[in-house]
Amino acid sequence: MNAERMANFQALFHPRSVVFVGASNKPGKWGSIVLANLMRNGFNGEIFPVNPGEAEVQGLKAYARIADVPGSPDLAAIVVPPPAVPGVIDECTAKGIRAGVVITAGFAEVGRDGLRLQEEMVDRARAGGMILVGPNCNGIISPPGRLHLAMPPVYPAAGTMAVIGQSGNVATSIARRIMKLGFGLSRFVSSGNEADLHCEDYFRHLAEDPETRVILSYVEGFRDGARFLRIAREVTARKPLLMLKAGGTGAGARAAMSHTASLAGSDAAFRGAVRQAGVIRARNMDDMVNMALGLARQPLPRGRRVGIVTAGGGWGVLAADACARAGLDVVDLPADTLAELDAFMPAWWNPGNPVDLVAALKPDHLWKSLEGLLRCPVVDGVIMLGIMPALPWRPLPPKITQEEIKERLSDFLAGVRRVFERFDQMAETYKKPVVVASEIPVVGPDLEARMAEVLGPKGYVCYQTPEDAATVMAALADYAEYLRDRN
Amino acid sequence: MNAERMANFQALFHPRSVVFVGASNKPGKWGSIVLANLMRNGFNGEIFPVNPGEAEVQGLKAYARIADVPGSPDLAAIVVPPPAVPGVIDECTAKGIRAGVVITAGFAEVGRDGLRLQEEMVDRARAGGMILVGPNCNGIISPPGRLHLAMPPVYPAAGTMAVIGQSGNVATSIARRIMKLGFGLSRFVSSGNEADLHCEDYFRHLAEDPETRVILSYVEGFRDGARFLRIAREVTARKPLLMLKAGGTGAGARAAMSHTASLAGSDAAFRGAVRQAGVIRARNMDDMVNMALGLARQPLPRGRRVGIVTAGGGWGVLAADACARAGLDVVDLPADTLAELDAFMPAWWNPGNPVDLVAALKPDHLWKSLEGLLRCPVVDGVIMLGIMPALPWRPLPPKITQEEIKERLSDFLAGVRRVFERFDQMAETYKKPVVVASEIPVVGPDLEARMAEVLGPKGYVCYQTPEDAATVMAALADYAEYLRDRN
Repeated sequence: MNAERMANFQALFHPRSVVFVGASNKPGKWGSIVLANLMRNGFNGEIFPVNPGEAEVQGLKAYARIADVPGSPDLAAIVVPPPAVPGVIDECTAKGIRAGVVITAGFAEVGRDGLRLQEEMVDRARAGGMILVGPNCNGIISPPGRLHLAMPPVYPAAGTMAVIGQSGNVATSIARRIMKLGFGLSRFVSSGNEADLHCEDYFRHLAEDPETRVILSYVEGFRDGARFLRIAREVTARKPLLMLKAGGTGAGARAAMSHTASLAGSDAAFRGAVRQAGVIRARNMDDMVNMALGLARQPLPRGRRVGIVTAGGGWGVLAADACARAGLDVVDLPADTLAELDAFMPAWWNPGNPVDLVAALKPDHLWKSLEGLLRCPVVDGVIMLGIMPALPWRPLPPKITQEEIKERLSDFLAGVRRVFERFDQMAETYKKPVVVASEIPVVGPDLEARMAEVLGPKGYVCYQTPEDAATVMAALADYAEYLRDRN
Repeated sequence: MNAERMANFQALFHPRSVVFVGASNKPGKWGSIVLANLMRNGFNGEIFPVNPGEAEVQGLKAYARIADVPGSPDLAAIVVPPPAVPGVIDECTAKGIRAGVVITAGFAEVGRDGLRLQEEMVDRARAGGMILVGPNCNGIISPPGRLHLAMPPVYPAAGTMAVIGQSGNVATSIARRIMKLGFGLSRFVSSGNEADLHCEDYFRHLAEDPETRVILSYVEGFRDGARFLRIAREVTARKPLLMLKAGGTGAGARAAMSHTASLAGSDAAFRGAVRQAGVIRARNMDDMVNMALGLARQPLPRGRRVGIVTAGGGWGVLAADACARAGLDVVDLPADTLAELDAFMPAWWNPGNPVDLVAALKPDHLWKSLEGLLRCPVVDGVIMLGIMPALPWRPLPPKITQEEIKERLSDFLAGVRRVFERFDQMAETYKKPVVVASEIPVVGPDLEARMAEVLGPKGYVCYQTPEDAATVMAALADYAEYLRDRN
């Protein structure tokens, strides 16, 4: 990426100052909601509201024209009506502004007149060396700089996940899911009509962005499929690029056409091309988030051979089914590994893979089984089901006070943190992924949220089902295989 | 079902008194944990601990032998070691006890000796007119009578969902998911080795059980497939029977064999037979719970033609894809329905199905669109995506106090309840299902739990994704189709 382009993206995601064109004091107006979000989120640069009719907007000094703003701002947020936008772009470029987020709707998506206006806007921006997000979008969020220039009331912490979406509402849904697991975002872009910047432009930038480790995307269609595939191949050599591609069925394609005028194209052909470019495709939002968080932390496996340790027989059967369906090999364990496990497991243990910890749920059995599988040369990664045996356990008394419940919850959370630290250390020691799914053994309305607070900031995830664990392991194996084969 | 059998099941699920054989004062022992669960859950009958070495167990008067217990108890919980069990069964039948839950492990699952012991136990029970759950199981729960005779620390409220599982841990996972959505259970059975009662025996009883509306099951294999199919066909004529069948892949079948010695059999053949018997098969635990809750409340659709109303374009595209993949028809709307919608939708609305509410998120638009689709003769059911437009909305101020947050949450929950009441009324009025999925628009660590508290007890569910909504609608359509075709 050339220096000018890098400066543009620097202005977009790390602006020192934002000119807000169309800033409003009227509650409910986009120019009010987005500005309030920007202020509430504690943006650490300067904000210059532009509104010819107000002296102040939301307590900030307002300017009648962009030209009046002091200094040389980096980024413009634009929420004025469509016909005014091309003129605003001229004023921005005259001021040296390098990037703009056009939230305003009413361009190509409403017909020929809108399309003409959109083309004029892009022509002027390009002539002036300015890049544009949108129009007709929900905005962008760049949590490392506390830049929240977007409609949705979601305030992600800084993290390493980038979300790029051709639908603002799906992108927001994806962001919420990441946040719910205690993780943060590096960037959030609702790309809207993609008049100037297309999704592959963001991908290419994010590949070089040191704050982004994994890219998650929601895509309905591409303007130029060949260009996307060329760029995707560059991106996937450097970091994982995940995609939820909508419009793969007839009904979905018709809906996509109506939504973003996207030509979704043949799903089968797309699947093949995308796989060759190393893009990891997700079936739904939850799968994509689960895979992304696994890819951000886990060592990549050397192959598709999986060992399973389970605290419950049924969960082991479900995991074995899910692994087989995901193209993973629930490998036959060699005699020496089985003998090693047999040495400490109870007499009624049935040697095999999954390793079922049966009724004897002792911490030692869990850790020794896990280590036995990680040491085993034919096992490329381990799925661990059920963390309960590893946690300190005290029987519940017939009656329990609120105070005791609180104390137990706090012990439980501390135990969970230690257990996941140990999983993580073992994965690192043996350079094999350890993907953990568990029922949460204690009932409490906010327990999942509190576990996420403990685990997410360290990069750990407790997946919810055996199928989730298999999906994540398969994504790790797919990406590892792709990286090996491309060289 | 004959009168004797009915009396047996009455004793099992509605006992007036429980004899607890192997009751213990030692924390951590099963005889202690299960008894504590029974007491904690507020069982409304009498409990008679039996333990020859103690005068009291957990504060209750203990008896040396079953014969010493006063009166004629209904149910026996049995946790004594395997060799003692056949003798205990004799003592139970001598006392007139009609049902037993054998939690003890160490029978058929550990080899030939265990199998012999198990057969002896069953022979004696049958000779004495006693039915047995287990052995090697987690127990049973019957919330309407506050009977909690089980290991897992889950305490479901009384409801209409019955869960039968050949794995105690999967059955517990399913129960937790139902509870998390604010729903209760009628019965919970971990069927263990199924020495006496097989899963189809429970199904047959539950078909006639007025407290059970829907049956959810986890199955690894059948002792007698033909018998299961015959009974399943009887059951599905009366109420929905859902099944998560594990062991469908080679790896899964091997794991099932090791877990419950189940011969999982060919998945393809099983699928066909089960479909003909009207059993609704689920891909995973979450899908099964989602479908079951929908089947418990929604009117059955007359066909597979779906209308979609969406507050977000991207969610609509995902729903259309998911519907098509689930064999539903995202139907072309007739001209008069489109004209009706066009009359109030904004000018830039693109007429079609999904009905995208676009940026103009007004409550009126949502309700009118929903009603328009429900009135439309070619629409058999509606998927509604996004409840935000129907909720009262006030812009967030730049700063908000804890007090205001609390007040807003309470307003939000009241609004959610009213919105779902209206969905429910419309479904009833038009006799068409209305399946709702929505992002939860407000962030709060326990908000999902609090929404579930508001919605679950009334039978309402807010599903989490467009795919979930399509899965539920497809289950409704499948079951309706089956019921039509079997006559």
